[in-house]
Amino acid sequence: MDATAISNRLALAHRLADAAGAAILPWFRQRLDISNKAASGFDPVTRADEAAEQAMRAILADAVPDDAVTGEEYEATSGTSGWTWVLDPIDGTRAFIAGTTTWGVLIAACWQGEPVIGIIDQPFVGERWAGSPAGTVHQRTLAGAGTDQPVTTAPVTTPAEAILATTDPYLFSGAEADAFARCRAAARLTRYGLDCMAYAYLASGGVSAVMETGLKPVDVAALVPVVRGAGGVITSWDGAPVLPLDPAWDGSALACATPQLHEALRTRIDATS
Amino acid sequence: MDATAISNRLALAHRLADAAGAAILPWFRQRLDISNKAASGFDPVTRADEAAEQAMRAILADAVPDDAVTGEEYEATSGTSGWTWVLDPIDGTRAFIAGTTTWGVLIAACWQGEPVIGIIDQPFVGERWAGSPAGTVHQRTLAGAGTDQPVTTAPVTTPAEAILATTDPYLFSGAEADAFARCRAAARLTRYGLDCMAYAYLASGGVSAVMETGLKPVDVAALVPVVRGAGGVITSWDGAPVLPLDPAWDGSALACATPQLHEALRTRIDATS
Repeated sequence: MDATAISNRLALAHRLADAAGAAILPWFRQRLDISNKAASGFDPVTRADEAAEQAMRAILADAVPDDAVTGEEYEATSGTSGWTWVLDPIDGTRAFIAGTTTWGVLIAACWQGEPVIGIIDQPFVGERWAGSPAGTVHQRTLAGAGTDQPVTTAPVTTPAEAILATTDPYLFSGAEADAFARCRAAARLTRYGLDCMAYAYLASGGVSAVMETGLKPVDVAALVPVVRGAGGVITSWDGAPVLPLDPAWDGSALACATPQLHEALRTRIDATS
Repeated sequence: MDATAISNRLALAHRLADAAGAAILPWFRQRLDISNKAASGFDPVTRADEAAEQAMRAILADAVPDDAVTGEEYEATSGTSGWTWVLDPIDGTRAFIAGTTTWGVLIAACWQGEPVIGIIDQPFVGERWAGSPAGTVHQRTLAGAGTDQPVTTAPVTTPAEAILATTDPYLFSGAEADAFARCRAAARLTRYGLDCMAYAYLASGGVSAVMETGLKPVDVAALVPVVRGAGGVITSWDGAPVLPLDPAWDGSALACATPQLHEALRTRIDATS
C-alpha cells in the first residue's frame, strides 16, 4: 500500500459516489405502483440499489480490474492487487422508502482486509464525507468545488456529555438490549433512525457515539475510515478491531468521538446489570 | 377568512421561512464552546432559535400588526384580526445539536384558532412543504423558483402496508406505550427520530402514519395544514380535532395518509391489550 495507490483510489471512490448518486436519485420518493410490483417483481429501492451497484462496478472493472469487489446486490469478484472494494449502494433502504434523508451510499476500499478509504454520501442533500489516512473531509456536493472542509469529532469524553445514536432500539434483545439501556441511561440524549448518517454526523462533531449490532460487511466498511480520519474510535462492542471481511468480526460497531468516551461506554457494555 | 387574506398570509409565511432559515444556518453544526457557554449562558441552538424568532416577529409586526403571535422563545402577543401566528423556529433542537437534517422551522397561521396555513421548512437540505386550503406544495428552496410540486399522501389503507414513525419511543409510558406497541406490531415498519419531518415525509407519500404525544401548540400547528393539504388526516389520539391553541387539546397527534388507515390505528389505540 503506497501513497499513490491510496490517492488514486480515493479519487476513484469519489467517481463511484458521483455515479451511484446519479443512478439512485431518479428513484428516490417515486411512488411504488403496487400492482406493477406484483407483476414485475421490483420496487423503486431495489431498482435504485441495482442501478447504483452496476454503475460502480462498471467503473471499477475499467479502472482497477485487478481489485476485488464485494457488493450488496451482486456476487463478489476476486482480485490480485490486495485491494477489495466494499459497496453498499443504499445503506438504509427503510429510510429510503420512507422518503427521509438519512440513507447513504457507502463505498470502501480495503487494503489486505483493512478499510483504508471510506465514503459516506447523501446525494439528495448533497453531503459527502470521505475518510482516508489523510483525514476526513466533508463536501457539499451540490454546491460544487471548493466546499471541502476537514472535520473532527467532538471533544466529548464522558457519557454525561454524549449524544448517543442507534438506528432502531428494537433491534437489540437480551444482553445487547441491557448493554444499550445502560449506555442510554448514562448518555446526555439519544437519537434514533440515522443509519450510516449517524457515523457521518459523529465525524462532524454532532453525534458523540453510535452503537449497533447485526451489521454486514457492506454496512460498516466505509464507516471505519470516516470515523478514524476524523479522530474517532471504532471497534466491535467487545473492543476488537472492525475488520469487515474477517469472519471473526461479530457484526457489531461501537463508534465514539474520543478514546475516553469509547472506554467509558465499553465499561458499561461489559458491566452486568 | 377570505381568499385574499389566506393568499397574503401564505406569501408572508414563505417570507418568514426565508428569514428564519437565514438566521439559523450560521449556527448549524457550530461547535459549542463549553467554557464559553458557562460564561455566557447560551449555546448555538438557543442563539439560532432566538435569532430566527426575532426575525420572523419583526416581519409580522411590520406586515400584519393586528395579528396575534405565539412563539416558542418569547411571550405571546395578542391581536384583533382573528389571525394568530404560531412559530417554532427550530422543531427538533436535539436533532439540531446532533447535526442531523431532521429538524425544521414550523410556521402556522390560524384563523379563529384553526390552523389554515402551515410551513415545514428544512433550510439546510433546502426543502419546504407549504400547506393551505389550496393543497400542499413541496419546494426545493436551494434550487430556486420553478421547483414547486403538489404532493399527496400515499394510498396506504392498512397497518400492514404502513410505514409508522415516532420521534422517540421512550417518550411513551403506561397506556400510551401499550397503544404504540400495538400499532408498531401491526405496521410494516417503524422509523424513529424524524421530529417534524415525519409529517413532511407523510405529506410526500413516504411515511404513512405518525404517532406522538406530549406536543406543545408550537410543535403541531404547522403540521395540520401540511398533512390535510396533502390528503392526510390528523387528529389527537382520541380522534378529536387538533386545535393547538385550545386548552382541550391533549397534546397528542395521530397523522395518517388516509382516513382508512387513521380508523385502523385509532382502533388499535383504543383496544385494551
